[in-house]
Parts: sequence; structure tokens; C-alpha cells
Amino acid sequence: MIPKEIKKFVDYFSKLPLLGPRQATRLAFYLLESDKSSLKNLSEAMSDLLKLDRCARCFFIKEENEKLCPICSDEKRSPTVIAIVEKETDLMTFEKMSKFKGQYLVLGKLAEKGILEQTQKARLEKLKSRIKSELGGSADEIIIALNATAIGDFTSDIIREEFKNLSKKITRLGRGLPTGGEVEFADETTLLHSFEKRY
Amino acid sequence: MIPKEIKKFVDYFSKLPLLGPRQATRLAFYLLESDKSSLKNLSEAMSDLLKLDRCARCFFIKEENEKLCPICSDEKRSPTVIAIVEKETDLMTFEKMSKFKGQYLVLGKLAEKGILEQTQKARLEKLKSRIKSELGGSADEIIIALNATAIGDFTSDIIREEFKNLSKKITRLGRGLPTGGEVEFADETTLLHSFEKRY
Repeated sequence: MIPKEIKKFVDYFSKLPLLGPRQATRLAFYLLESDKSSLKNLSEAMSDLLKLDRCARCFFIKEENEKLCPICSDEKRSPTVIAIVEKETDLMTFEKMSKFKGQYLVLGKLAEKGILEQTQKARLEKLKSRIKSELGGSADEIIIALNATAIGDFTSDIIREEFKNLSKKITRLGRGLPTGGEVEFADETTLLHSFEKRY
Repeated sequence: MIPKEIKKFVDYFSKLPLLGPRQATRLAFYLLESDKSSLKNLSEAMSDLLKLDRCARCFFIKEENEKLCPICSDEKRSPTVIAIVEKETDLMTFEKMSKFKGQYLVLGKLAEKGILEQTQKARLEKLKSRIKSELGGSADEIIIALNATAIGDFTSDIIREEFKNLSKKITRLGRGLPTGGEVEFADETTLLHSFEKRY
């Protein structure tokens, strides 16, 4: 009774976060009402994400045909100061602050249990070899820019221990962040304070 | 700094209902984490909606290459009983009931002010000529299956007046306590209806 296109749409889209079957159904009918060009745009915007890749140096996203992400390839940014962030969106929030001129390592979403996954361990290893090969074995500063949560604290301790001989200074974001607060949701001023009060 | 694909995605998707810029950004990164085939599926499911069209008889959706929607072309369904629904999703809820074996007219989303739009007037005219040409000028029953709201009531009155000479019977959906509803928590109007329609 329902066209297979709608069924397929609801089937696929209801698996996304934020959307249940009811929302996906309403979205389908909303899209059917909108003009054909914007529907095409949305579909293309989605498939265009396939053109993106991960930077092999900091693990942020990059264009498929670029060697590195725009941050790693920006020669004005200092490679000796490295901020370790959890998520890409954290990096983006950090960049909105327009204060940090170093580089990054995107660690990847931390598990509830606070244990580092294999990919996360591999990314930290990558940072170690980056410090060894590019910075003669010592960074000027590693800023552990993880959330001010229990898991963030726990992971920070691990990272601090792992990198204690690989950086002159290891800092965390100042506790200007409210306890339990997440980087992604911090307003720019709060983030700026926490950046300046890092310890 | 942010790849243009992400910007475009956020730009387009944050205009959809349910999604703001933050949700669209998170969705983008969620999709970047998922495998490429499911991303392709989603994009295709979206562009496949372009293959859909509107049934010229009842205004429900139909496959582009089909003449009518599956309901209008189902010969087992009676063309003499017609349910007028507001939205496609209302029709779908009606169908889930598996009780109604008549046909439909989808009126289109009613405006807040309760005034019928040109397209809605045109759809009602289409139903009139359908009754005249197919049913010899009189349907057996028109069920006005609009919401039990002020706008639904108002629109029902208009439709009842418009079709008074074109159907043996014109009904609305029954009013009363919803299943599981408690008298104590029923609003006065609901209770009044349930009292008047007691059986």
C-alpha cells in the first residue's frame, strides 16, 4: 500500500540518531512536499560525505584528494603544541575560539567504561612517533582537551603517564568548565577561560 | 578549516524539521563514522523519493510510472465510501486499522487559520467531479476523518455543506474517551462528547 520508496526511506532513516520511525515518516512526507531541487541537494550533500577521509596525522576529517587536513598542512600553526581532543566536533568548537595555534590529535569517542580502544591506542602511538620523528622526541606542550568528566579525568591520567617523557609540559583545560560539562556544549567565553587557565 | 562537504551538509540538513545546526553537525560526523554503503543507501533513499508522484484521484503518493496510487487502483476497495483525511500520514494510520475498505481524499495540511487553501479547494472539487462521473452524483458515505480540533471542526462544517447533495451520508469520526483514558483526567469537552455519545 505504501510505496516502496517511502518504506525504504523510513527503514534507513529511522536507524539514524534523533529519528524514530514516526519522525522518519514525517520527514519523508516533508521532503515530498519540498521542491525537487532541494531534495537533490540533500541527497548529494549526503553522498558528498563519501568524498571525505581521515587525516593520517591528526585523524580529523580531510578531503579525499588532499594529503593532510587543512590544520596539519597549515604552516602557520605550531607543530610543537598539540591539543588532544575526543571528537571532531570538539576540535571544531576549539577552532571557533580562534585562540589556539597549535595542532591536534583527535582521539575518538571515549567508551563509557573509560578504557581506551585499539584505534585510540593506535592514535596515541601515532602521536608519539610524530613527536619523535618531527620534534626530536619532545613537544613543547600537550594540552589534554578532554571533557571535565570522570572518563575525561581517567583518560587524561593515562595520557599524562604515556607522554610524560615526550613533552616539556602536559596540561589540561582549566576547570572553568562546569563539572560534568562537555567541550562541545561550552560557550566560547567559558572555553576561552578554560584554555587560559589550563594547568 | 571545516571541509566544504560538511558545511554544505550542515547548511542543507539544518533546514529540515527536527534538525538544528548542532544536530546536523553531529549527524554528519555520525555518518562519517558509519560504513560507506549505508551512507550510499541513505543518499539513494532520499533521491528515490523523486520517483514518487501524487495520485491525481485521491492525492496520496504513488509511483511515478503508475497511473493511480495502490488504493485507488485496488478493485476490491469500494469507491462509494470515501474518507477525507488531512495528511498522508493520517491515511497511513487509517490503513493500519485494517478496517476501512473504501477510498480516500487527502486534503493536505490545514492552515492554522482554518481557511482552505486553493489546492485544498481544488482537491475537493476533484472529489465532487469524481462522485459525479463515477458514482452517478451520489456517494454512499463520506467520512470526514479530520482531527478533533477546532480547525478540524470548522473544516468539517465547510465540507459537510459542500457535499450535502453529493452523498447519502456524511459522518465524522466518533468522539469520546480514548481507549485507556480516565474520566478523572479527561478535559471537559472530551467528557461532554463521551457523555452525549454514550452507548
